[in-house]
Amino acid sequence: MNEKIMILDTTLRDGAQAPGVSFSVADKIDVAHTLDELGVDYIEAGNPASNPKDVDFYARMRDRPLRHARLAAFGATRRKHATAERDSRLAALLAAETPVVVIFGKTWKLHVSAVLGCSEAENLAMIADTVSFLKARGREVIYDAEHFFDGYRDDPDYAMETLYAARRAGADTLVLCDTNGGTFPGDVARITAAAAAGLDVPPGVHCHNDGGMAVASSLLAVQAGARHVQGTINGIGERCGNTSLACLIANLQGKGGYRCLPGLDRLTHAARQIAEVANMTIPDGEPYVGAGAFAHKAGMHLDGVAKLPATFEHIDPALVGNSRRMLTSEMAGRTALLPRLQAYDPSVTRDSPVLLTALRRLKEKEHEGYQYEAAEASFDLVVRRLTGTYRPCFELLHFKTIGEHRPHFSATAVIKIRVGEREEISAAEGNGPVHALDRALRRALEVFYPQVKGIRLIDYKVRVLDAAEATGARVRVLITSTDGREVWTTVGVSQDIIRASFEALADSMEYHCHQRT
Amino acid sequence: MNEKIMILDTTLRDGAQAPGVSFSVADKIDVAHTLDELGVDYIEAGNPASNPKDVDFYARMRDRPLRHARLAAFGATRRKHATAERDSRLAALLAAETPVVVIFGKTWKLHVSAVLGCSEAENLAMIADTVSFLKARGREVIYDAEHFFDGYRDDPDYAMETLYAARRAGADTLVLCDTNGGTFPGDVARITAAAAAGLDVPPGVHCHNDGGMAVASSLLAVQAGARHVQGTINGIGERCGNTSLACLIANLQGKGGYRCLPGLDRLTHAARQIAEVANMTIPDGEPYVGAGAFAHKAGMHLDGVAKLPATFEHIDPALVGNSRRMLTSEMAGRTALLPRLQAYDPSVTRDSPVLLTALRRLKEKEHEGYQYEAAEASFDLVVRRLTGTYRPCFELLHFKTIGEHRPHFSATAVIKIRVGEREEISAAEGNGPVHALDRALRRALEVFYPQVKGIRLIDYKVRVLDAAEATGARVRVLITSTDGREVWTTVGVSQDIIRASFEALADSMEYHCHQRT
Repeated sequence: MNEKIMILDTTLRDGAQAPGVSFSVADKIDVAHTLDELGVDYIEAGNPASNPKDVDFYARMRDRPLRHARLAAFGATRRKHATAERDSRLAALLAAETPVVVIFGKTWKLHVSAVLGCSEAENLAMIADTVSFLKARGREVIYDAEHFFDGYRDDPDYAMETLYAARRAGADTLVLCDTNGGTFPGDVARITAAAAAGLDVPPGVHCHNDGGMAVASSLLAVQAGARHVQGTINGIGERCGNTSLACLIANLQGKGGYRCLPGLDRLTHAARQIAEVANMTIPDGEPYVGAGAFAHKAGMHLDGVAKLPATFEHIDPALVGNSRRMLTSEMAGRTALLPRLQAYDPSVTRDSPVLLTALRRLKEKEHEGYQYEAAEASFDLVVRRLTGTYRPCFELLHFKTIGEHRPHFSATAVIKIRVGEREEISAAEGNGPVHALDRALRRALEVFYPQVKGIRLIDYKVRVLDAAEATGARVRVLITSTDGREVWTTVGVSQDIIRASFEALADSMEYHCHQRT
Repeated sequence: MNEKIMILDTTLRDGAQAPGVSFSVADKIDVAHTLDELGVDYIEAGNPASNPKDVDFYARMRDRPLRHARLAAFGATRRKHATAERDSRLAALLAAETPVVVIFGKTWKLHVSAVLGCSEAENLAMIADTVSFLKARGREVIYDAEHFFDGYRDDPDYAMETLYAARRAGADTLVLCDTNGGTFPGDVARITAAAAAGLDVPPGVHCHNDGGMAVASSLLAVQAGARHVQGTINGIGERCGNTSLACLIANLQGKGGYRCLPGLDRLTHAARQIAEVANMTIPDGEPYVGAGAFAHKAGMHLDGVAKLPATFEHIDPALVGNSRRMLTSEMAGRTALLPRLQAYDPSVTRDSPVLLTALRRLKEKEHEGYQYEAAEASFDLVVRRLTGTYRPCFELLHFKTIGEHRPHFSATAVIKIRVGEREEISAAEGNGPVHALDRALRRALEVFYPQVKGIRLIDYKVRVLDAAEATGARVRVLITSTDGREVWTTVGVSQDIIRASFEALADSMEYHCHQRT
């Protein structure tokens, strides 16, 4: 059995410190469950002492328990010259009621004097008091030794003293952090090995990417004895980001002989789903999980891969749930697609022409910018249309939107639809053209399908594709709807944001009508 | 004196194989001169045997000589069972008339049999013949040993034989390539050291980023004895890219005690200029050269950096020509804001009422959903308006957008503005209401400010705030513009996406007008 490496994902804490990233409480719950399904061991999700939104998140997670991962709250050691018992920040950590607490403390004497402004002995007491306070209240405690590598180079004895203080107080795991992200991988390996030699538990490691080497440093740290790694699934974080866990895990488990997750086949899907929630784009060339990570362009490479994939691929893309991008890659998709078609037509087999047609259609749509990973309802409609079991609920005859600046900003939409022999025209105002169109469409549909009244749109996301084309670029719109029982997401793509939004709105209504019939 | 590492940039050859990248001949000349000014030693710019555009490039470079860098043409060994003298590909390499030729050959027996389909002895002869043919014609020859690390693991003796064949034939430099990009950094270091021990010249190294560790592997290879490194300034290349030279050079020369370039202060500028020509965006979090590589957001980090930059920065950003950004977010305080106000009014101090007003205004705007950390141009306008130095460039009188579904999707905008005593009305069509509005606004402004013609929008981002409100939610729009020299980003927030977009568009134009006056 390969040796197990514990994985802590901090997308929801360190990742949320990345410029431009902001998670709502609902987003956070969504990400936590995606990470749980992926199989990470710990989810560090926020600092309840500094952020009221995080308090709300932890409270709501009590009704949405995780299956495998342990939830962790993150916070600092107690205030200087005070007691843990009267520290309001520690009280907030306990109030989060998580099984695990991650506490960070100072390792580097420069920080103790210049930032904390207290004595080196007081810093050790702050670490010890905080850890024992939390252990006495039944928490699993992970101690993050901030700036460990810088501190160790400055004074190895003091750096180790901080770890001993945490461990003697009962810390379960000690994590060596490269907070400034500038330590060279060789030094990370050497110092990790030296620290591990002085400890009675294998250490963890937490790297930042300021030198562009966080993944390599973490890998070398594991090879030097670390058995716990912290990072964010897509590498987001303050400044240049944290260790990309998707990449590190693929290296460790896919090629390094270590075990991190129950399996790697959900890795690409999870990374993309979380990126979608963070409203960020995974670069095409992102190792392992990027859309182009296994894309071959040069003729010589295409030839080589066609003869023998190992000639230009370091691993099989299917291992991490990604796929090779070449014209002949249809074989990879059949397995995934077959059960979807069989749901509507049980007679479909692996060799049915409709399966090949569906694969081709899917590839065409994805090439146009559609993405079904987060829009299963639209995907179901694509499949229904292909299996011949589909009758549209309504036909769009015309719509028009008008936006005006005077006398005040206003948006109006007029829409005309046909159901059977009957036509219906309706109009509505809204806070913008899409809002107006949404209301006008539902008003017209309610005449035929009263149950549409109960549908509520709960999320609306816009992503610009081909950003270089700026306002003339294609956009992808994702709309999430609910009828109070089920939640479904649909997608639309167009150069025109109104058109893309209408497509997603129409799919959302169609999906609901078909579910109810 | 620190030891010199020779730098070969292959942006124009390996980089051009990245999906979505395409250089015109004029682009290539531009990039070559930017690299030359930066001070790289070799510029590998194309394969004249396989690309007619490259033939033209090399011909035109004869009238545009480089000051420091040596130009290199790239090609394969001679065809099997043939002579170098009668090989048309080698003739094309000579016709490029470059002082340097890079020749790649096979190291891995798997490739010799499965791809070349010849004997191992013939492969050695192909290497030797090709190198001696080029040396006899006065070229400096760099030999790239393709798949060296995979080949070495498979059969170290044969892998070394290929290097010996090249060296005996006169190759000046032998380069160990990790073509599939999957070798772990520790293995790269170990194999580089072993190869170096068997050679009479220090080897070079060429890594790919499929494991996300190309920079670290190249750094460890240098520490193990390599003295020549190949990569692309921004890391672009086939699949997951090549070694990012900007990052590697900053590590080697800024922190590692090696010498690569005459100086590092042009590094950020060169990386961004070449990205501009490649029509790609450098991610904000890109190590060393990204706009956010030295950006601080969390309050604790802002305080620390204000006290002592080394607390949260691994190097001084000025060393690589980048700069620190104290992000003007709610988390930031007076420290971040003061220098911004002083830029317009040097008499402002830490206690000036205008500083407190600005802080309050910033918090109000951020509460409404504005985000200035990525929209510094809009923030500059906020500050200008507060310091009383601001006169708007135009006044909006009215606009209207119309979106229609029949006979085809169309979007039209009409806008009327006033500048001084004069009014101007204009109309335009576009791929959506925002595109149409953008064009109509610029058309009207051009009458008064001809320089507006040169502005190009290069990025357009939409983020839905309070997603739970769905289509009635507020949206934040970020627009990035350029006039070919400067790049700036502006922000708009509204429940109406058209209004938010217009606000960001208007700020973009205002900012440009104010910069030019």
